[in-house]
Amino acid sequence: MKKKYFRQQEDAPAPLRCRVDRVVRFEEVDALAIVWHGRYPSYFEDGRVLLGEKYGLGYMDFYRHGVIAPIKQMHVDYRLPLSFGEPFTIEAILHWADATRLNHEFILRNEAGEVTTTGYSVQLLMDQEQNVLLLPPPFYNDFRQRWLAGELV
Amino acid sequence: MKKKYFRQQEDAPAPLRCRVDRVVRFEEVDALAIVWHGRYPSYFEDGRVLLGEKYGLGYMDFYRHGVIAPIKQMHVDYRLPLSFGEPFTIEAILHWADATRLNHEFILRNEAGEVTTTGYSVQLLMDQEQNVLLLPPPFYNDFRQRWLAGELV
Amino acid sequence: MKKKYFRQQEDAPAPLRCRVDRVVRFEEVDALAIVWHGRYPSYFEDGRVLLGEKYGLGYMDFYRHGVIAPIKQMHVDYRLPLSFGEPFTIEAILHWADATRLNHEFILRNEAGEVTTTGYSVQLLMDQEQNVLLLPPPFYNDFRQRWLAGELV
Amino acid sequence: MKKKYFRQQEDAPAPLRCRVDRVVRFEEVDALAIVWHGRYPSYFEDGRVLLGEKYGLGYMDFYRHGVIAPIKQMHVDYRLPLSFGEPFTIEAILHWADATRLNHEFILRNEAGEVTTTGYSVQLLMDQEQNVLLLPPPFYNDFRQRWLAGELV
Repeated sequence: MKKKYFRQQEDAPAPLRCRVDRVVRFEEVDALAIVWHGRYPSYFEDGRVLLGEKYGLGYMDFYRHGVIAPIKQMHVDYRLPLSFGEPFTIEAILHWADATRLNHEFILRNEAGEVTTTGYSVQLLMDQEQNVLLLPPPFYNDFRQRWLAGELV
Repeated sequence: MKKKYFRQQEDAPAPLRCRVDRVVRFEEVDALAIVWHGRYPSYFEDGRVLLGEKYGLGYMDFYRHGVIAPIKQMHVDYRLPLSFGEPFTIEAILHWADATRLNHEFILRNEAGEVTTTGYSVQLLMDQEQNVLLLPPPFYNDFRQRWLAGELV
Repeated sequence: MKKKYFRQQEDAPAPLRCRVDRVVRFEEVDALAIVWHGRYPSYFEDGRVLLGEKYGLGYMDFYRHGVIAPIKQMHVDYRLPLSFGEPFTIEAILHWADATRLNHEFILRNEAGEVTTTGYSVQLLMDQEQNVLLLPPPFYNDFRQRWLAGELV
Repeated sequence: MKKKYFRQQEDAPAPLRCRVDRVVRFEEVDALAIVWHGRYPSYFEDGRVLLGEKYGLGYMDFYRHGVIAPIKQMHVDYRLPLSFGEPFTIEAILHWADATRLNHEFILRNEAGEVTTTGYSVQLLMDQEQNVLLLPPPFYNDFRQRWLAGELV
């Protein structure tokens, strides 16, 4: 009964995924010795950055093409706490979107495999003057073509 | 055309509000010299803490009564960036809820009065063993009675 | 018996000072409910930024003149802890230096006036290519002339 | 011509060392796209925590024995900047001390092997009421005996 953050058309290509392994750091926990709620965007970013590196969609890739991809929306659902020293995984999932936007979902799990936290972020592609790109840049189109063609895993 | 984060019954008492004045700190901006998206939960917390102090709903108030109020959901909508040194305001708004939960809305505005960021958080009241409180504790009931009676401003 | 961080010549002009009033934020404390040691550089910066604004030595002032002032050394002595919600003050003190460098001292005090933390930072002036400026830029010379002349308070 | 942070007696056992491999994260850089000076205590902690785990001197080890080891002094020397995405290493070095204190040195190096940052931290052992322990606890004595006997590598 996991909540669905993004509605998907039936013929959309399968989402792209990657996983980061992490341990809760001392500075990340609060007075209750659990991770402070405001650190999770940082965990999400770790997943998004790794996925970006894997598929050529990182901060620097965009930068090289004169594009920025600011986050327009972020959401976190907190289910179970994480404690100092606890190992956990961050799964980042990029869902297909027909529009020029990046829809990431995030799933954190503890060592027992329980889902502790879920969430999502939405990014738009913009030029350096913060105008939304209506026509996606060539490198991004190439990426989408390869995704559609099933060449990305 | 502001998005409504919480649906409200017509006879609910008016929400409680407070405002924090802030300036963007150097360590809060990223390589583009705008506030990194992951810092906004911290801005929201500044508003929530001030509202909590004003109405006796702070971390320490809950703690004194053996109650914790963990954040179960957080959402941010990013509209305009904030830059280093830029003054801005954080408005925190507590909406009435029939259930034992705290529904906060947040509105950030720049010096020109433009809304730069909005969002919300949802908290449940729990005992120290992380069991949801179905019956709200007396101090919290008193607070709600005064709110209903129009005694809070 | 306060430790002296910077040796001073007898004829140096009196140091410049300013004070920031702060309260410990929830996200700044650790599992022991005291401020995590790594947050103090952030407190020091609050003091340094305010002093910079007061005397035209802020990040943006340097930037406008094509100068950067990277921190080359930082030191913290921890004497007493600070707890969540505790009010404290940050005193920033700029000491005179014959060389082209900024020597700041920091003194934090709790509500009882006890010194909780002290420290210092050292900055060099550089051009945008990170070459140390041997000849200080005109705006910085003006600042020093006014300081020597006793015009700054 | 590396600066010596801790003077060492000739017959002291060799220091204990470990190394963490890291990459600069986006949220760690400032408006100049280099790591903000105030993040380095966090890098140092990564090294100290790993060394602590390796030799049974971690936060939780101390906690289990009713001991805390607050940081009393921290120092950073900044030599070269680190940029977003740049890989670097954190070497943590625990130096022998006759007194009941933990003297850690830290050396950060970039991919070219250049030293970018050095520093140190000093910790005292205390009981839960923040009284300095003059007689070290048994688990800590055992650790020191094994170190002296050359059993630790």
